[in-house]
This record gives sequence, structure tokens and C-alpha cells, in this order.
Amino acid sequence: MIAEKMKNMVANSSAIRAMFEEGNRLAEIYGAENVFDFSLGNPNVPAPEAVKKAIQDILEEEDPVALHGYTNSNCGYADVREAVADSLNARFGTGFEGKNIVMTVGAAGGLNVILKSLINPGDEVIAFAPYFGEYRSYTNNYDGVLVEISPNTADFQPKLEEFEQKITPKTKAVIINTPNNPTGIVYSEETIKKLAAIMEAKQKEYGTDIFLISDEPYRELVYDGAEIPYLTKYYANTIVGYSYSKSLSLPGERIGYLVIPDEVADSEEVLSAANVATRILGFVNAPTLQQKIVAKCLDEKTDISYYDRNREALYQGLRDCGFECIKPEGAFYLFVKSPVADEKEFCAAAKKYNLLIVPGSSFACPGYVRLAYCVSYETIVNSLPKFRELAKEYF
Amino acid sequence: MIAEKMKNMVANSSAIRAMFEEGNRLAEIYGAENVFDFSLGNPNVPAPEAVKKAIQDILEEEDPVALHGYTNSNCGYADVREAVADSLNARFGTGFEGKNIVMTVGAAGGLNVILKSLINPGDEVIAFAPYFGEYRSYTNNYDGVLVEISPNTADFQPKLEEFEQKITPKTKAVIINTPNNPTGIVYSEETIKKLAAIMEAKQKEYGTDIFLISDEPYRELVYDGAEIPYLTKYYANTIVGYSYSKSLSLPGERIGYLVIPDEVADSEEVLSAANVATRILGFVNAPTLQQKIVAKCLDEKTDISYYDRNREALYQGLRDCGFECIKPEGAFYLFVKSPVADEKEFCAAAKKYNLLIVPGSSFACPGYVRLAYCVSYETIVNSLPKFRELAKEYF
Repeated sequence: MIAEKMKNMVANSSAIRAMFEEGNRLAEIYGAENVFDFSLGNPNVPAPEAVKKAIQDILEEEDPVALHGYTNSNCGYADVREAVADSLNARFGTGFEGKNIVMTVGAAGGLNVILKSLINPGDEVIAFAPYFGEYRSYTNNYDGVLVEISPNTADFQPKLEEFEQKITPKTKAVIINTPNNPTGIVYSEETIKKLAAIMEAKQKEYGTDIFLISDEPYRELVYDGAEIPYLTKYYANTIVGYSYSKSLSLPGERIGYLVIPDEVADSEEVLSAANVATRILGFVNAPTLQQKIVAKCLDEKTDISYYDRNREALYQGLRDCGFECIKPEGAFYLFVKSPVADEKEFCAAAKKYNLLIVPGSSFACPGYVRLAYCVSYETIVNSLPKFRELAKEYF
Repeated sequence: MIAEKMKNMVANSSAIRAMFEEGNRLAEIYGAENVFDFSLGNPNVPAPEAVKKAIQDILEEEDPVALHGYTNSNCGYADVREAVADSLNARFGTGFEGKNIVMTVGAAGGLNVILKSLINPGDEVIAFAPYFGEYRSYTNNYDGVLVEISPNTADFQPKLEEFEQKITPKTKAVIINTPNNPTGIVYSEETIKKLAAIMEAKQKEYGTDIFLISDEPYRELVYDGAEIPYLTKYYANTIVGYSYSKSLSLPGERIGYLVIPDEVADSEEVLSAANVATRILGFVNAPTLQQKIVAKCLDEKTDISYYDRNREALYQGLRDCGFECIKPEGAFYLFVKSPVADEKEFCAAAKKYNLLIVPGSSFACPGYVRLAYCVSYETIVNSLPKFRELAKEYF
């Protein structure tokens, strides 16, 4: 009965659901504390206390009709958009105005809005493997074609030569994600400059506009003082997608934004299209209470030291067991080389020890596995003896 | 730069935005109290006090990590889905379980989820004029073809003969909306039975499944004790889309649900597809705090007497001026016959008196205009002398 396009996706999602149900089944048998679920990127640091305070204040301060009503523009409250622009300008020396900001239903909503706005059937969207698997679905929603750049497993920086070769006159957008899911890698400023230069040259060569879409839900989650360049300063046709899911631990509330700078080609038209896309895709507007909350919490941060402790413990622990992995500089994922070529086999072996990890094929990078370390420190500490047992099967 | 599909929509939406900006411009010149804006369906009755109380209680009761986190299923919290099912069963004698409920980002989100789940390119979706113009955009999102049944201006009940003729082997869905936007009409039980019988017969004739999608944001907004039949009881392949936008005055918060009953053909597959569609369209899940709020407010109702007073005043007032309209039995719209064939001309004339009303062409029903009476009673009382002056131009 269902749409043809959905059939494969339903089949695949059943596999993920099966994994989730397996986790629940194991927890029932062994107790939740004896199941080590590294499969989900659901933050376990609570939202800052300021979020609760913001909600309580908003309920007292705001007229409920305005608070819970439709926003005048589908792009969100004017004051919230201005506050977001001001905050970005203060942090990054940019020159955005409220009109450049589109409040969205999380980063996933924002990516759909901008792809709907830009993509014609057959247009190509480039992503660097390993990448968040949903990019393929989002591109497919608008009959675009996802073009993959193969993974550079040496250091997981993007393969720029292959990138240059794969840009065609049909390339409409390039999605990058730094800090990266699933590797935790941060693209260096040098990488960004090279990437921008390649895109500039190709725009000239083909007489096209190629949009750089920077998917930044992990921007605030960086370690060891790593710097995340603000992409709009390096390449004019840059559109930023942001989410408060990780930075304020609000993933279920679905709140984020797009930045569409004036420097983007036909920026007014793109902004109008994003406004319409927000409406007709059924978002209508980002949840209004959440818009007001984030405007009050622009300077709040999640407790990065919590994730940092997990990062150190898991990275060191796995290295000590003999596993190979690159130390993440951001996000809350560790991308580990599977000791056998078929990483799904490795995931199955891990499950025998109640270790739940995700195969790299889900991120277009077979031979690796992703561990999300947004779990409790105890989970990590208690999982290490299990990883040691698992390692003994291979080393 | 923008996608071809978006170009017309951006052009049209500019017209709507122009109207909105015109309202703001008039308000600046004449004062907001002298501008009578009947153009928007944004409820002006505040959310029940119980909503505020629910938020405060939830903040105290719930673990913030769980409260603001991703839900385990993209369809929403299991306990919320069960509570919604139980509430429907108690009210309508249905037999739903939690698994039949998909929490959505409002009704607009729900309609997009179900159309994405069902529609192949070229599939036909039938709507009865006058209808909410977004149905065309939503259908177009998935390359479906909206097939229009012409309006029955005698009483705005659906034209069932034309409906029967226009069902083809490509008809995948029929959208109905009762109480109706823009007419305020309620489909009688007799109408529903006939409609169901036609659809049953056509399913048999063509060997197809034709889904009845009941878009019900106005279910609770009925007057004079009118009854809204619960559609799943009349036709097996019925899917209900609901929203709390009007019933709890939460339109900006984007919270509603789909009901996909077991009786629907391949219901498990359709439910799986709705789950995946919720994810890949970028909704991910309905906002989590709002899910918890509505679960606590299932028995709350908006103050219908407020809208009823507006209805009576506006309906009588306009009739007294000589305008023709059918008295609405539900929702908060009045659909008025334009005294001239080109209703856009009439809307322009009304604007001279600072009366902002929407042309029926936006609802595929030229020759009529829509007035949204979810405004203050004072707005209605003060607008009537203006309508009287306007009427003098015609009668």
C-alpha cells in the first residue's frame, strides 16, 4: 500500500528498530545496568538549569495567545531571529540581521527546508563519507542525487582531490558536518580554505552556484580548545544549519535555525523559498515556546567536561584493548576500526557482551563502527572489561 | 537559484505576505484598533489555564534528559500515544491502541507524513472545493495530483455525483475537512455514509485501496450541539489527522497526531512508513514537552462560547447589511458570497474600510470570501459599521 520510495526505507528502518528492540530485550534479561548501549546520539547531560528557569519566566511574562500562537512569519519570531543574529555576530564577527535567520524544527527540519528550497530533480548533492545517513534520505525527498566522496581513513579529513573531480555542472550543494558525526573529527581552517577555493573555481568553470551547507549540531561540542571556523566567512554561498539538540540538550524539542546570509546568490529569493518550504512541508513554524527559550539561553552551554571525561576514558580504554581509532576533537562519537573487514560481524560479536554499537556502513564507511559516548561515565567504565573480552577474540 | 517547484509558490506567497504587510501598514496609519483583520486563523482565545499548570508540573515531575530527549520511537512517547488512544476510545467507542497513534508536528505535519507514506508520483488525491489551499502544496510535495470536486454553493455539502465520477484507478486518497475551513460547514452523518459507500464501491470496482484522510483541526469547535461523526467507524481505510492548534489554542507549538487504525489496509506497513516519514522529513518527533502537555490536557476544551458569540454577531451583522452567507456550524470562519463576480475586487473594496478578508480563490472557490472570526468581540462590533458602508456600494 505504501509509496514505492518508502519501501526500502521501511525495510532498513525495521533493521534499526530491531536493534533497538534487541537492546530492550537484553536490558530485560540482564538488567539495564549490564547493557552498554552506545548506539544512540541522545545527549545524557540534562539541559542547563537556565532552560527550566527560562520556561518558568516565559510562562509568567508572555501573553499566552502570542506565546503559543502562529508566528507572523513562518521563519519565526522577529525578536528571536534578531537575538540569534546578534549572538552570532558577537561570537564570530559576522554581520547577520534577523532576516537572515530562519528558525527551524531542529537541524533535520532546517536541512529539509533548504534542500526543498534549492534542489531540482536530478541535482547532485555531495557528502563526504563517513556521513550522517539521513543526508541521503533528505536529498532523496526532493529527488536529488547524493554523490559520495569516499572516506579518507588516514585522518578522516575530506578527500579534496576526489571532491574536485566529482563536482559537475549538476552539483547544487555540498553538505559538510564539522565536528563530524560519526568520526568526531574537526575540519581544519586549512581544509576549509582549500574546499572553498575548489568550490569557487568550479562555480566559475561551470557558471553555476554551488551551495555549501554546513550542518552544525555539534559546533559547541569541542575539546582541547579546538576552533571551528565559521564557514560563511570563507565562502559566500554558505548556508548554516544549526540545532540546539546537543548544545542545550533539547533534541526532542526540535529547535534550530538556518543562516542564509546576504552574500548567498539570490539570497532574498532563497529566504522566501525557505519561508514557503517551512510552511508547505508542514513545519509551519519552529515550536514557539522553544523559540522563546533558546532566545533566553543563547549564552548557555552544555557541560562539555562531562563528555570530555567520557571521551578520554573510552578512547584510552579501547586503545588499551588494542582497538584502533582517531581521538575525536568534537561531538560525542568515537569511530573505531573494526578488527575484521565485515564490521557487521564485529557488531554482532560485540552484542554477545551486551555492547551495542553501530556499523560504519550506516555512515557509508564499512570496516568501522560508531560508538556514541553520550552515556553515563559508569556505562563507559563498566563496559571496558567487556571490550577487553571482545578484543581477545581478535588480538 | 531556487527549485523550479518553488518558484510559483514563492510568487504566490509574496502576495499573501504583501497582504499581511498591508495590514501592518494600515495599523500604523489608522491604529491597530481601527484595522479589522479577518484574514488569519490564529485563535485569539488563550490556551486553557490547565496548559500552564501542566507545563509547571511537568518541569517538576519529569527528568529533563527524558523530557527534552528524542523519543524512542519517531511516533512519540508510548505513554502519550496510549493516553490519546484511550481518550478517543472513551469519547467515540473506538478500539485504538497506542500503536495506532503517531504524534505529529501539528495537523500540517501529520498530513505531510501520511501523504509521504502513501503517494507515488502521479497518484491522485481528491479534495472538495472549497478546501484549505495547502492540500494542493502538500500533495505536490510528493508529486501527487490534486483532483478538485467543484463547490456546491447551495449548502457547501460535498458534490457526491461529481466525486463518484472523478474517482479513478489512480485515486489514492480523499481529503475531507469537517468542520470545514473555509465554510464552517459540518458534513452530516448521511453525507459521510454516502461518501463511504461510494468509496467502498470504487475500491471494489478498481481493486484498489482508497484512503479517506480526515483533517480534523476543528473537531472540537462546533456550535448548537452539532455532532461530528468519527470517520473510522464508517469506512475502514480512514486515517485521521488531528491538531491541538485550535482545541487548546496551541497553533505555534506544532502538536497533533495521526490515527492509523488496524482496519486500514496493510496498517502495520503504513504505520512503519509513517514512522520513517516522520524521521526523514525532518520532524524526527513531535516536540516532546508539547506531547507531555497534551497528554495532561486531553479533557480540556477551548472556550467555544467566545467564538459562538463572535459567530452570531458577525453572521447577523453581515446578513443585516444584505450579504449572503451560510451560518457556520463549526470552526471559526464565515464564507460570504461576494456581491460581485470577481471577489478579489470585493476584497480590494473592503480594504478601503480597513476590512481585511481573504478571496475564495485561495480555497478554489472564487466568488466568495473568507472571514476568520477568531478575533476579539470588539473587532467584530466595531467592524460592522464598516461592513455597512461597504454594503452600500453594492446593495
